[in-house]
Amino acid sequence: MAYIQVPEGVPGIRSLVLFRPETGKPLYELAQVLLRGPSPLTEAERELIAAYVSGRNDCLFCRNSHAAAARCLYGEDKNLVDEVLKDMNHSPVSDKMKALLNIAGKVQVLGKEVTPEDIAAARLSGAGDREIHDTVLIAATFCMFNRYVDGLASFTPMDASAYEEMGKRMTEKGYVLPQPQNNK
Amino acid sequence: MAYIQVPEGVPGIRSLVLFRPETGKPLYELAQVLLRGPSPLTEAERELIAAYVSGRNDCLFCRNSHAAAARCLYGEDKNLVDEVLKDMNHSPVSDKMKALLNIAGKVQVLGKEVTPEDIAAARLSGAGDREIHDTVLIAATFCMFNRYVDGLASFTPMDASAYEEMGKRMTEKGYVLPQPQNNK
Repeated sequence: MAYIQVPEGVPGIRSLVLFRPETGKPLYELAQVLLRGPSPLTEAERELIAAYVSGRNDCLFCRNSHAAAARCLYGEDKNLVDEVLKDMNHSPVSDKMKALLNIAGKVQVLGKEVTPEDIAAARLSGAGDREIHDTVLIAATFCMFNRYVDGLASFTPMDASAYEEMGKRMTEKGYVLPQPQNNK
Repeated sequence: MAYIQVPEGVPGIRSLVLFRPETGKPLYELAQVLLRGPSPLTEAERELIAAYVSGRNDCLFCRNSHAAAARCLYGEDKNLVDEVLKDMNHSPVSDKMKALLNIAGKVQVLGKEVTPEDIAAARLSGAGDREIHDTVLIAATFCMFNRYVDGLASFTPMDASAYEEMGKRMTEKGYVLPQPQNNK
């Protein structure tokens, strides 16, 4: 049971933005532009950063849903997602993604944890300002979403098929503010 | 020096949204609706929660600017702000604000830190669903802003007068996306 009265059976963030659509609107717009808008990072890479940070914040709803979206987007390489979630440093992602995920992991702890050396390592592996910016903002944004979802104890489905369906919807439709009549 | 090439001399979040206005737009809209839109919490109380969480995240830019805004909004009671930042539990805020700030402090650590007892204590002191929702979302949102601002090492002014001016602007004008020609 969520801590506040949200529509029953609606999972995670969707229940919260139905409770308060005024704040839900910019939250969904942020997710859409950040994860689906133009970026030198692919949609798959951005969803992977979101899942990685959510996993570190122990937010099952966000980790599972964004991991599912990342698996859809990686297609044939979908096993990469679980390898990163299990052990990022020994996973077969590119050096650039490793350097960016390292920055995202620092941001998850606290902004000041990111050092000039972390940034230099990312640049050395080919990341530019935009990759670095988007990585930091995605990591920071999921530190918000994770706390919003868990801080109000919103409904976290436990069956894998629910997340598979969410991942598919997030891949096909992006982030569209749910409407009261179609909220599941 | 910020880690990415942002307009020189522009402090904190303002420099970052000038670098990337597409994400800046929903970020400023979120701040505006959350801190200035309709809420059972006063604008002063909401700015105080923002400053309190930012202080706990050791984000000087956000703590100092939102504390300055809270001082403007509290008027005669402005000393309250510094008493909360120094020692919330022994500060002279109301029991309701103390219970909400306690929840905000838990959210700052991690969403799952918030317990049913924390929520019950807030309700006992008179807080309803909306106060609880807005407190959790403000705390979560500043966990994002703090990490964005510090994770990219954006410019943090060190003189108190700069923050006083910011606080005044935030009180009078709210959160308006800065434009390239008027960015300081």
